Amino acid sequence: MSTPILGYAAQSAQDNLEPYRFERREPRADDVVIDILFCGVCHSDLHQARNDWANSVYPVVPGHEIIGRVISVGSSVTRFKAGDQVGVGCMVDSCQHCEPCHHGLEQYCVEFPTFTYNGTDRHDHAPTYGGYSEKIIVSDKFVLKVPDGLDLAGAAPLLCAGITTYSPLRHWKVGKGSKVAVVGLGGLGHMALKLAKALGAEVTLFTRSADKEQDARRLGADNIVISTDDAQMAAVNSRFDLIIDTVPYVHDINPYMPTLNISGTLVLVGYLGPLDPFLNSAPLVLGRKSVAGSLIGGIAETQEMLDFCGEHGITSDIEVIKIQEINEAYERMLKSDVKYRFVIDMASLKA
Amino acid sequence: MSTPILGYAAQSAQDNLEPYRFERREPRADDVVIDILFCGVCHSDLHQARNDWANSVYPVVPGHEIIGRVISVGSSVTRFKAGDQVGVGCMVDSCQHCEPCHHGLEQYCVEFPTFTYNGTDRHDHAPTYGGYSEKIIVSDKFVLKVPDGLDLAGAAPLLCAGITTYSPLRHWKVGKGSKVAVVGLGGLGHMALKLAKALGAEVTLFTRSADKEQDARRLGADNIVISTDDAQMAAVNSRFDLIIDTVPYVHDINPYMPTLNISGTLVLVGYLGPLDPFLNSAPLVLGRKSVAGSLIGGIAETQEMLDFCGEHGITSDIEVIKIQEINEAYERMLKSDVKYRFVIDMASLKA
Repeated sequence: MSTPILGYAAQSAQDNLEPYRFERREPRADDVVIDILFCGVCHSDLHQARNDWANSVYPVVPGHEIIGRVISVGSSVTRFKAGDQVGVGCMVDSCQHCEPCHHGLEQYCVEFPTFTYNGTDRHDHAPTYGGYSEKIIVSDKFVLKVPDGLDLAGAAPLLCAGITTYSPLRHWKVGKGSKVAVVGLGGLGHMALKLAKALGAEVTLFTRSADKEQDARRLGADNIVISTDDAQMAAVNSRFDLIIDTVPYVHDINPYMPTLNISGTLVLVGYLGPLDPFLNSAPLVLGRKSVAGSLIGGIAETQEMLDFCGEHGITSDIEVIKIQEINEAYERMLKSDVKYRFVIDMASLKA
Repeated sequence: MSTPILGYAAQSAQDNLEPYRFERREPRADDVVIDILFCGVCHSDLHQARNDWANSVYPVVPGHEIIGRVISVGSSVTRFKAGDQVGVGCMVDSCQHCEPCHHGLEQYCVEFPTFTYNGTDRHDHAPTYGGYSEKIIVSDKFVLKVPDGLDLAGAAPLLCAGITTYSPLRHWKVGKGSKVAVVGLGGLGHMALKLAKALGAEVTLFTRSADKEQDARRLGADNIVISTDDAQMAAVNSRFDLIIDTVPYVHDINPYMPTLNISGTLVLVGYLGPLDPFLNSAPLVLGRKSVAGSLIGGIAETQEMLDFCGEHGITSDIEVIKIQEINEAYERMLKSDVKYRFVIDMASLKA
């Protein structure tokens, strides 16, 4: 028997998000039925609601930073039981048989993962609807355990902003003695500061505005470099092993390349598109440097990140909103007017 | 007492190379005096002779793929003695105290290495003159041992083309089971095929011309992919762990990015300049892929490469010329009319 659900959806690229009633599938044997408590508001939600990537299928129910409580589980589910605090991130399924899936890299599934919203279920071919809703039903393989002691609202953004920055920090082996820089101080950037610091790195924030210094230091930055100040940039020449670039729009990455140490890597996590102006290969060749990209993280790594955050008491800095405030929140996000993530208290849906 | 030397030099960007008499320094305690037997002709020689990089200081005596025999050694030299077969590559000195130098990465010396020609000696500030000459005098730290049994003329290009391709193969851990592709079949490309194959990789050549197939297979390629053939490109989607891109001029690297496996790297070794057209970051982010660069190799790694070539009987495919034919050879290089490297028999200088 399918489950009637109340959520918020965009019915077209031009529409505000409004209440929307839909049905979720009858739970399968491997499904976990989750009562959604909090849902983070990611920039992707806005892009998808407004069809910025030209791939939206309406109605769009956004939300992939989901924290909830298990209501019930299917007959084959052993890892979860009613009452557990759980998370769901950007993916709810993948092919499970390709090489990346076998290596725990479901985000790079050769057949593409099933995204939490604006996706298509691999079994019944129904559209997927995200976390701006009462409940979600997800295969147990894609449900994460949320460690005790973490603030549940603050934990929601870990499911996307957290893992998106944690995964490259781990892949490029950041630890004690590493020198990491972060470009951009938003939802992703503020998590990158916290996580890099907790991993033991010396952490620097590149920013264009000096007024971010106090906040950056509170979040874990040891140093702040004003990226438009030539003298400050020259002072960090050849300094960093890894630069996490969280900027979500086209921007010039050339000025950051000289600040990488020999064999260092700048990893893009926020921007998909042409690197305009032209990336100059000379600093790459003359210093064995790399420009790379990284996409969220696999399920096992997401669990590892949540456990790491549990141990270190790391959550996102958030502003809790009611679902009725979502359209206003989107407008404020467009002006970067949020420190540093909106999280919807889903209890408001019942109000 | 300084040593009078006959060499070949360009006196300006417009001049052909012509005989030129100059002096080399009085040998210092750590110097090795080398009678030059063979010198490979690298594309850089042509660029520098013609001031293509706008940094040439005339006269330019090119040549940094040098094979010779030791004539004498300074008082503090213990690793070499008269009669030894030795090599000199692109560098003759470096600061020896920066972090890269301490890690055997003299090519990335923070104060820049002293290049074998068109450089400036760190001690007497005299210009450096390269291997298109009778003799060269080099600090023992920058002199390589040439294993017995290697054809000396064929070994000369190992000092630049060999190490330039060997270093990234080693840095990115190519070995048995690796899948490597090479873009471009010239001096660098043909060495990349041989070395990747000898390291145990499955090797593919990307080329625009089907007529290179037979030669590529002889040199070590398991597969040939015509890069302008969409079906052939699609057939190697997500295949390669490492792509060595040896193309020495501006070119579009975007078509190669889908052929990298998850976490794969395309490394540029031949081109310094803007990546035009724009590199698209989407394949980087969606597959954790990297675009990197690499420059020659350190001295210890160059020795490792020569020893590896000695064990595997690897030399360059060459066409031996007389020094008097150098200007004609440059014209043929511009038309890629060489398989795969010109090497000057320096005995011709005495003719």
